[in-house]
Amino acid sequence: MSDEKKLSPRSEDFSAWYNEIVQRAELAEHSPVRGSMVIRPWGYGIWELMQRALDDMFKETGHENAYFPLLIPLSFIEREKEHVEGFAPELAIVTQAGGKELEEPYVIRPTSETIIYSMYAKWVQSYRDLPILLNQWANVMRWELRTRLFLRTSEFLWQEGHTAHATAEEAEEETRTMLGVYRRFMEEWMAMPPLTGLKSPSETFAGAVRTYACEALMQDNKALQAGTSHFLGQNFARQFDLRFQTEAGEEEYAWNTSWGVSTRLVGGLVMTHGDDDGLVLPPRLAPAQVVVVPILRGEGGGPVLEKAHEVAARLKDAGLRVRVDARDNLSPGAKFYDWERKGVPYRIEIGPRDLEKGQLALARRLVPEDGARKAFLPEEEGIARLPGLLDAFQAELLEAARARREAASVRGVASLGELEEAFESGAGFVYTGWSGDEAVEEEVKERTKATIRVIPDEEFRSSDRPAGCVSGTGPARDEVVWARAY
Amino acid sequence: MSDEKKLSPRSEDFSAWYNEIVQRAELAEHSPVRGSMVIRPWGYGIWELMQRALDDMFKETGHENAYFPLLIPLSFIEREKEHVEGFAPELAIVTQAGGKELEEPYVIRPTSETIIYSMYAKWVQSYRDLPILLNQWANVMRWELRTRLFLRTSEFLWQEGHTAHATAEEAEEETRTMLGVYRRFMEEWMAMPPLTGLKSPSETFAGAVRTYACEALMQDNKALQAGTSHFLGQNFARQFDLRFQTEAGEEEYAWNTSWGVSTRLVGGLVMTHGDDDGLVLPPRLAPAQVVVVPILRGEGGGPVLEKAHEVAARLKDAGLRVRVDARDNLSPGAKFYDWERKGVPYRIEIGPRDLEKGQLALARRLVPEDGARKAFLPEEEGIARLPGLLDAFQAELLEAARARREAASVRGVASLGELEEAFESGAGFVYTGWSGDEAVEEEVKERTKATIRVIPDEEFRSSDRPAGCVSGTGPARDEVVWARAY
Repeated sequence: MSDEKKLSPRSEDFSAWYNEIVQRAELAEHSPVRGSMVIRPWGYGIWELMQRALDDMFKETGHENAYFPLLIPLSFIEREKEHVEGFAPELAIVTQAGGKELEEPYVIRPTSETIIYSMYAKWVQSYRDLPILLNQWANVMRWELRTRLFLRTSEFLWQEGHTAHATAEEAEEETRTMLGVYRRFMEEWMAMPPLTGLKSPSETFAGAVRTYACEALMQDNKALQAGTSHFLGQNFARQFDLRFQTEAGEEEYAWNTSWGVSTRLVGGLVMTHGDDDGLVLPPRLAPAQVVVVPILRGEGGGPVLEKAHEVAARLKDAGLRVRVDARDNLSPGAKFYDWERKGVPYRIEIGPRDLEKGQLALARRLVPEDGARKAFLPEEEGIARLPGLLDAFQAELLEAARARREAASVRGVASLGELEEAFESGAGFVYTGWSGDEAVEEEVKERTKATIRVIPDEEFRSSDRPAGCVSGTGPARDEVVWARAY
Repeated sequence: MSDEKKLSPRSEDFSAWYNEIVQRAELAEHSPVRGSMVIRPWGYGIWELMQRALDDMFKETGHENAYFPLLIPLSFIEREKEHVEGFAPELAIVTQAGGKELEEPYVIRPTSETIIYSMYAKWVQSYRDLPILLNQWANVMRWELRTRLFLRTSEFLWQEGHTAHATAEEAEEETRTMLGVYRRFMEEWMAMPPLTGLKSPSETFAGAVRTYACEALMQDNKALQAGTSHFLGQNFARQFDLRFQTEAGEEEYAWNTSWGVSTRLVGGLVMTHGDDDGLVLPPRLAPAQVVVVPILRGEGGGPVLEKAHEVAARLKDAGLRVRVDARDNLSPGAKFYDWERKGVPYRIEIGPRDLEKGQLALARRLVPEDGARKAFLPEEEGIARLPGLLDAFQAELLEAARARREAASVRGVASLGELEEAFESGAGFVYTGWSGDEAVEEEVKERTKATIRVIPDEEFRSSDRPAGCVSGTGPARDEVVWARAY
């Protein structure tokens, strides 16, 4: 169906724009099940490409996939105190099954640390059985009252890595390695450059010792926590008796890590690149990188349609993802709108005149600097150049996102007043000193709605490190990055 | 860990053999959650290869993936009468979520017809919106009291295709197409040649008009229902108001199909090819097709290990899945056992003497006809020949499975006495005439434990079609195939 109604402009109502684009680009929609979404083929196609890329990276770093039960005995969740406190309010609970009341209720996994480490405890006897480096692709459930498609839903899809190591050092290294994998994926595939760093204790995962995160800045200058990697210490190992015999013959608890990203990334992709015409997809994650639209005018469409399929076949042979839009009930203009809304990077138009001249009209989803969105190229040249044009498109998106992030970053803010002012004038990431005192986090949150997103990794730190805490009371322990967040 | 204890022989206790092999080849094991299994990396690796192959075939036949909610309102399941009767006893029910009792309970999907067709009803207005050809990869839950790893578990992984069409003919064609896809996958990838055909009404899916199935014969001569494809008619469309305007402007209900295969296929693979030494994997579904074992004796292992990695790298470049087993705490013999148990098709041994002679020792998982399991080949020749040897291995497995199936098939059985006799003397598939009377099915089941697996498709029918029903009372309407089944 063609749907030519304009989207709400981002500048007027970013939130309305997001909701409209997700539904009208047919990424996802609400379902009759409270808080659960339906991911439609175009949205799921993006997720499949994300999965494939991440899965390859996980395997390259030595991980294998496995699958653990959806249901977890309630008593398991309750064993790790902080873990249950964090998750109890969000649990969905199965109390009946097979026509009977269950003796012990099960929860639908909100995350799988407990069930997975209970199995590792059976598999590990000696240091020779370590490390265990597993990942699982799965659905999880966290009951949410206020939901937004992709960003916050009761059920979502994700991957969760769970590893066990013989030493704290090795586990810490794994935690950092996977944070790096996420960052690389977000930059190279999503063209969404995140800040990375450590979470403050108040934002640490329930049950973890330390949480590292990737935080990306959306176009409304709010941050999106896009991936986390947790150093769990021996917290879960103690509760699930995950012990091993060291090389020296001693018994010790193993050291665990867990790390995950979810379908939330699809929301991040939308909010990083979309514009008022619709979605803009980085070519590496576009289910179709090129759409070929034959311009058929009345009779004699045969040769044009044939050429469209021929060009598409040649581009497929060159390794591109291509579709031909041969629908006969839509005008070319309606098709253009449709694929622009869906964010396809390049469109090729072929009409009778192009056929005569042996040329292709290439239209780019983004208007380039010089303003020429459409180019006419000889057929051979157009086909030969498209892979390179797509690479350039991908690079341009990353560059633009990085520039936007930096333009919205404010460094060297030295007081609560300045901090407030920065957010009032639309800042995204604001860098300040912080004493480490949670009371400061609470005060800032109250005054600005912002929270500490990360204690940034070395390369993101300001060259001039702040000496004092933003609160004005005492020295800074760390430089931190504040933002309002999803 | 090495585990050199012998498996129970298949001939003595097939069921014990199966349970041992699944656990000792580290495919899967039981979990603390009643009826739910943990799929370990080796088993999940097989499932991933199955998924990839099937997914490609689904896409080639015009389908896209999507994702629908895990939870289904109880009232949805109850709308289609036969559907709820079939599934009610197996439902797991969520009654509490987010700290509250739910007003309407949700069931964990046992299958997704109801939730999916409720969404299609929103998406379809006109014949132009049809067909819808979607598939979903998901977990489902059917509460089972007697479980067996892969074959029958409460939670299992599967894919479910759900399509909507404008005409009955088109839906029927889709049903048959997907049955054909399953059959081709089972033959070409699993080397497990199934019979295909129509189910009798007593074995038809709850809510379907007709169910087609792939039925494969295991080594104990019991049948495994390995895939089903259902023509649903307008049964669900009526309940979920899935209507469309025809080209002529009339309102009509759409016609649906659904089709699925599950992790049960992994069990089928084990029972089709495994032997008393362990698993035997068809190369196209082996997570490792070749394992390279360096034979390290004391000092001087460096060059041998180096050569092992070099050979592995060259085989990987040739597109094979290869591992090097460089564990230093196991003897070569223990490694051989380990990989034989896991079913890896080819093993390459490289020791100091092989290095000197520039040769590789190739050991095959299956003993070939001429009895020479191990061959010494010059390095170059060994590397060059392996892809072809793996193809031959794959073809041999299919041939052997087909020959076994035919050897265990008995045709032209004309009375209940003969039928009983056939099963007593170990028959697998028994072909007879059948009047269409369900009472005959019941009587046969009581006397032999066998059921009608399919009314076979044309190519599987006997050249001499039986004239009378096996019950001796009247003419045969169809030829049918009986078997004891999983």
